[in-house]
Amino acid sequence: MGSGALALLLLLALVPGASPAGRKCELSGLWRNNQESLMEISAVRDDGGFQGKYLTRVSLAGGCPRVSPLKGAQHHLSEAAWPTFGFTVRWEKFSNATTVFVGQCFVDAGGKETLVTTWLLREAVGSLEDDWKATRVGRNVFTRKRSQKGKILQSWSSSCEDDPSPEP
Amino acid sequence: MGSGALALLLLLALVPGASPAGRKCELSGLWRNNQESLMEISAVRDDGGFQGKYLTRVSLAGGCPRVSPLKGAQHHLSEAAWPTFGFTVRWEKFSNATTVFVGQCFVDAGGKETLVTTWLLREAVGSLEDDWKATRVGRNVFTRKRSQKGKILQSWSSSCEDDPSPEP
Amino acid sequence: MGSGALALLLLLALVPGASPAGRKCELSGLWRNNQESLMEISAVRDDGGFQGKYLTRVSLAGGCPRVSPLKGAQHHLSEAAWPTFGFTVRWEKFSNATTVFVGQCFVDAGGKETLVTTWLLREAVGSLEDDWKATRVGRNVFTRKRSQKGKILQSWSSSCEDDPSPEP
Amino acid sequence: MGSGALALLLLLALVPGASPAGRKCELSGLWRNNQESLMEISAVRDDGGFQGKYLTRVSLAGGCPRVSPLKGAQHHLSEAAWPTFGFTVRWEKFSNATTVFVGQCFVDAGGKETLVTTWLLREAVGSLEDDWKATRVGRNVFTRKRSQKGKILQSWSSSCEDDPSPEP
Repeated sequence: MGSGALALLLLLALVPGASPAGRKCELSGLWRNNQESLMEISAVRDDGGFQGKYLTRVSLAGGCPRVSPLKGAQHHLSEAAWPTFGFTVRWEKFSNATTVFVGQCFVDAGGKETLVTTWLLREAVGSLEDDWKATRVGRNVFTRKRSQKGKILQSWSSSCEDDPSPEP
Repeated sequence: MGSGALALLLLLALVPGASPAGRKCELSGLWRNNQESLMEISAVRDDGGFQGKYLTRVSLAGGCPRVSPLKGAQHHLSEAAWPTFGFTVRWEKFSNATTVFVGQCFVDAGGKETLVTTWLLREAVGSLEDDWKATRVGRNVFTRKRSQKGKILQSWSSSCEDDPSPEP
Repeated sequence: MGSGALALLLLLALVPGASPAGRKCELSGLWRNNQESLMEISAVRDDGGFQGKYLTRVSLAGGCPRVSPLKGAQHHLSEAAWPTFGFTVRWEKFSNATTVFVGQCFVDAGGKETLVTTWLLREAVGSLEDDWKATRVGRNVFTRKRSQKGKILQSWSSSCEDDPSPEP
Repeated sequence: MGSGALALLLLLALVPGASPAGRKCELSGLWRNNQESLMEISAVRDDGGFQGKYLTRVSLAGGCPRVSPLKGAQHHLSEAAWPTFGFTVRWEKFSNATTVFVGQCFVDAGGKETLVTTWLLREAVGSLEDDWKATRVGRNVFTRKRSQKGKILQSWSSSCEDDPSPEP
């Protein structure tokens, strides 16, 4: 091993979280995206499955934010430090619409975790002929939000009662 | 039961499959898409959640077909005859990649069920700089395949042993 | 030239349309997609540029079909028998919306040409905050329609006068 | 005109650049995206058509940046202050691939212009069976780069000679 590599190892030992590929990314916890939507992901099970809640701040029809259930799966952590994952959000009290997200978790040199996702939002249409216009596409970047788990999701959504339609 | 409902039942009995919005679409069962991939969806739970298996015939890296687990959710049947749904496929024995599907179930006048889906396939990349090229998009149409459940998935996939990488 | 190559050439000469990669695909002409929309593409220039007209049968707001201008580019035929291409449709008399198509031209063993395209439809939104919902995604497959060029586009669109909004 | 409207007009006159819908967005000029790619758009013609050059910093196959021609159309400025637009980039000296962008131009209260775009990158595949994996999707945000037009594009691209494959 050259002295350069040795110096690097020492540096990594001294600066916590500086190991680029070594830092594993944990999906569980509270995340916030660039539209101020929040999501909370439960502990990831051994088979990669997870559940959670999604609180969107924007919707196709406007209205107040709503908590909707999410359900998904990620690759096994043992195989990949920065796993890909996917999940489905069923907009529960909105109209008949579903969003799927797919993405990957990244950790930068400073230990900051980022979930980069692309999503598809599917609205229900009344016939196969209208299927062409049913699907929207977009992108969301989430960063971890430090806080007391769950409390925020609860309080945000309690202020509103009736609302149609969703979104990412 | 009122006389209106009775008349409707009689009408439905006389005109087979003529009720356009009345025919509910059931996600559970065996489905085949236009690339000869197969998927089997378990019974849908009361909360809309479901599980299943996906057997792809095509993959980014070629190779033999593989069964991978899928996990998703659909809108409550009570609220919509033709529900939207979404699910995640984790390509288990392939490389670090995940696909999400979102779609809607349609039933035509003859009772033929069709799942029209759009998907995103996410491959893992080594850094945020490479994130731009990680996501593919496509479309899949599934029709119901009548058969003894599960047996086909088992037999197809048992003939191959080693293979990298996936697909829809 | 080896005798194998010579035999292949003879075979190709005897079996019309049997040359898989040899058949070039010509973008120019009249095409119809699976939603009964029509498009007419002018002769492709030496630099790959082309123009044309798109007549859509479906629109976000309903209404009668409209001819809109299209403009695009394909890869040089000399470099690829089955070129990729892209084009932009500006929905002229509709609302502020634009669609882009990207695809590839395929020719099957029988000489049948198919344009397989994926599109993005962008609607105008009033602010950056609403940008997330502005983009739809879909797929269109076109096959060549034999006919007297242009006449159909003219006659279809002359029957309608006022209409908002577009689509692929 | 009511006194409220009059007050608003006075306010707009006093605060430069504060007119939300009044500031028109001009596509022509030099733009830079979040991957450090550059594009230069020529003057937009009366019919909405425009041409330009795209210099990408990232590519599917790595290698040095390349200037490729772009061609597109936007909605008439007279009809919309913040027009939607679309354009096609033909990756000239790369492999057989094409990208289409669709987006909208926004101007914030301070006069800063942003082009928010979604793109599809299409690679050529050898058969219809492989079509499913040919299309990638992504997002690019461009901001105006003040500089002497064209000079940067020229100098960046002159340093490299041989390279396969492209991207956004």
